[in-house]
Amino acid sequence: MPIVVQKYGGSSLADAESIKRVARRIAETKKAGNDVVVAVSAMGDSTDELVDLAQDVSPVPAPRELDMLMTAGERISMALVAMAIHDLGISARSFTGSQAGVITDEAHGKAKIIDVTPGRITEALGKGHVVIVAGFQGVSQTTKEITTLGRGGTDTTAVALAAALGADVCEIYTDVDGVFTADPRIVPKARKIDRISAEEMLELAASGSKVLHLRSVEYARRYDIPIHVRSSFTPKEGTIVSDQPGPAGAEGTEGEAVEAPIIAGVAHDLSEAKITVVGVPDTTGKAAQIFHAVADAEINLDMIVQNVSATDTGLTDISFTLPKTDGQTAMEALTAIQEQVGFTGLQYDDQVGKLSLVGAGMRSNPGVSATFFRALADADVNIEMISTSEIRISVITRSELLEEAVRAVHTAFGLDSEDGEAVVYAGTGR
Amino acid sequence: MPIVVQKYGGSSLADAESIKRVARRIAETKKAGNDVVVAVSAMGDSTDELVDLAQDVSPVPAPRELDMLMTAGERISMALVAMAIHDLGISARSFTGSQAGVITDEAHGKAKIIDVTPGRITEALGKGHVVIVAGFQGVSQTTKEITTLGRGGTDTTAVALAAALGADVCEIYTDVDGVFTADPRIVPKARKIDRISAEEMLELAASGSKVLHLRSVEYARRYDIPIHVRSSFTPKEGTIVSDQPGPAGAEGTEGEAVEAPIIAGVAHDLSEAKITVVGVPDTTGKAAQIFHAVADAEINLDMIVQNVSATDTGLTDISFTLPKTDGQTAMEALTAIQEQVGFTGLQYDDQVGKLSLVGAGMRSNPGVSATFFRALADADVNIEMISTSEIRISVITRSELLEEAVRAVHTAFGLDSEDGEAVVYAGTGR
Repeated sequence: MPIVVQKYGGSSLADAESIKRVARRIAETKKAGNDVVVAVSAMGDSTDELVDLAQDVSPVPAPRELDMLMTAGERISMALVAMAIHDLGISARSFTGSQAGVITDEAHGKAKIIDVTPGRITEALGKGHVVIVAGFQGVSQTTKEITTLGRGGTDTTAVALAAALGADVCEIYTDVDGVFTADPRIVPKARKIDRISAEEMLELAASGSKVLHLRSVEYARRYDIPIHVRSSFTPKEGTIVSDQPGPAGAEGTEGEAVEAPIIAGVAHDLSEAKITVVGVPDTTGKAAQIFHAVADAEINLDMIVQNVSATDTGLTDISFTLPKTDGQTAMEALTAIQEQVGFTGLQYDDQVGKLSLVGAGMRSNPGVSATFFRALADADVNIEMISTSEIRISVITRSELLEEAVRAVHTAFGLDSEDGEAVVYAGTGR
Repeated sequence: MPIVVQKYGGSSLADAESIKRVARRIAETKKAGNDVVVAVSAMGDSTDELVDLAQDVSPVPAPRELDMLMTAGERISMALVAMAIHDLGISARSFTGSQAGVITDEAHGKAKIIDVTPGRITEALGKGHVVIVAGFQGVSQTTKEITTLGRGGTDTTAVALAAALGADVCEIYTDVDGVFTADPRIVPKARKIDRISAEEMLELAASGSKVLHLRSVEYARRYDIPIHVRSSFTPKEGTIVSDQPGPAGAEGTEGEAVEAPIIAGVAHDLSEAKITVVGVPDTTGKAAQIFHAVADAEINLDMIVQNVSATDTGLTDISFTLPKTDGQTAMEALTAIQEQVGFTGLQYDDQVGKLSLVGAGMRSNPGVSATFFRALADADVNIEMISTSEIRISVITRSELLEEAVRAVHTAFGLDSEDGEAVVYAGTGR
């Protein structure tokens, strides 16, 4: 029997009515002849409520206990979903992350899944039950402590279960219709993407697209699990994320997959800040000292730029971006080494935005960057930093220019739909 | 190091401030040189809120899933209490019932503890941690399913932990000052009892006293664990429940325990109904058929009375009391066997109340029942049913007369305090 793994987020489980609606959807999937395993998030805003409760009790909650607390949210929703399925005449069993065999490392609050041992799930499926699993949580391998995977972790739970069970597809149900060529709140003409490669989705997620959690896409790519991102509010097809060839027919010729567009989409991110280390002596090892200090504070840097050294002073500036939430920690770590490294000063700038253009097609289309920078220049958007990968170009701009920049790039690459209708991309080079 | 087990109920954990207050109390006990293990209930009314949520989703929730749901409440409170203790500079670890080794049978919603394997608790105590355990829950021995112990189950959790750990005392913290000679809401002159035997406490709990859960007292008695019932809102001493001799001194002579009073207290219960099976043929086996039918419906009867058979008809009436919540089920079970047994009819009466007088001293004081029935007669309270044990007399009255009856009996046995002061009982026969 085919195995389908589904994931429902908090917005799809906001109240009793939503839960019953989700239960009907699960029941339909079961009745269609599938074994069904479902990963659920906590109901609506209940995770935030638990965080607030913890804050009321303790300014800096003990991480182990915070994980104990947070996992209660998914426990509640999984039990309610299982009850609602029962009432539709289908037997269901809920399991915590620990019971489901989601084994993680020891990092409370941001644990990584290192193994899934789904013995109880397989046994329950064998008895004909639908299985509901608490997302976002697991149990640590060595200490047997309850852990959480961090925000968005239920996506990762679903994909990890799909991989461990050899599922045919992992359906991620959310409150939007799928992955779009840009955030529709900023670009009203953004189009839903029918199919996107895991590689491109990875770049989009890493660049600020919030539809799928980055780690879940990494996991899906590693284990070659197709993800179907779709709305729990409509029966419409959503976006298939997969490196496997698409279905034949439709717009292509018989037996031949539709060729992918050059550009998958435009992502933006306002969650980063920029730090500039000013007047760094341009001698061997100084940059290493700076990045070592930041790494020791467990901060992940994103983009890094080093200016050409001014010949008269022998000094250079080093700029990098990092999550705003790590800004203070980074500034403290750098201030502590200022004397030792001998740089002149530090600048902190949280009024920056990042725009990223993602598309596997840019590998073989040299004209992409020219079109990209022309669009930004025409929109009077000044560029402060640039970084590229094989299938992505990212730039840092002033934050107040970011939305306009996203719209300009989206239009320049022919991604705009007409009258809300999805249009087939017809760029150059196809 | 002495081991103290404490239990805090929902009313002591109503909000963040209450949780911090409880944490300070636990920290003081730890600092006084004890190993401390704490069983906690869900916060305030949160258990009721979870039940309501389940009702919204499913009219008759699947029992396994209901237990999954309900256990989230204690998980939340235990994590918050542990966090609050951490903030006082004392390390704490919370454990679910399953992690704490609370092993139960398979009866979802009313599981019985059959073993406690406190390996993780002992290990945590050995490392100097305070241990917080989710009350009211366990894991089934054979199926490894999460179970709940039913209402009041956290008392039982605490006592079971105390027994398994060989604790010196099990302190049950609640919102009243201890066990009283009667419910102070009905008898304003009720006195707090300083010390009561487990046997008497058992009878009081079985007769409607709600301070301690019946099963927790049974457990404490079997394993000879002293219980200290006290308020979490004051530092005052509460009530010691123990069959061990009381402390020397005070009002007794040196080295000799104070003699216990004849009467411990008066309990009342408005949760029962009375069913009368009318016109039962007075032949062998008819009563057995009736009680068999009720037992098959898993209903526990309390008091049973069979009238003397009327010689002219050969028919008799059989009355019994049972929980009101089982009334409808019992009536259906009896109606189903009416033809087979051949009784005339059924009467259902939920306007009854039960009054119980409890005291180990009544064993050796034959005048007790005379005083008891005289007091009820003087108060014009008609008695409908009577049952007795060695240390208890219970009667069924009209429910609207019950409160007056409780006050009359309380006064007749000299239990009233004067001006709110505790008085030493000075009844006859001492």
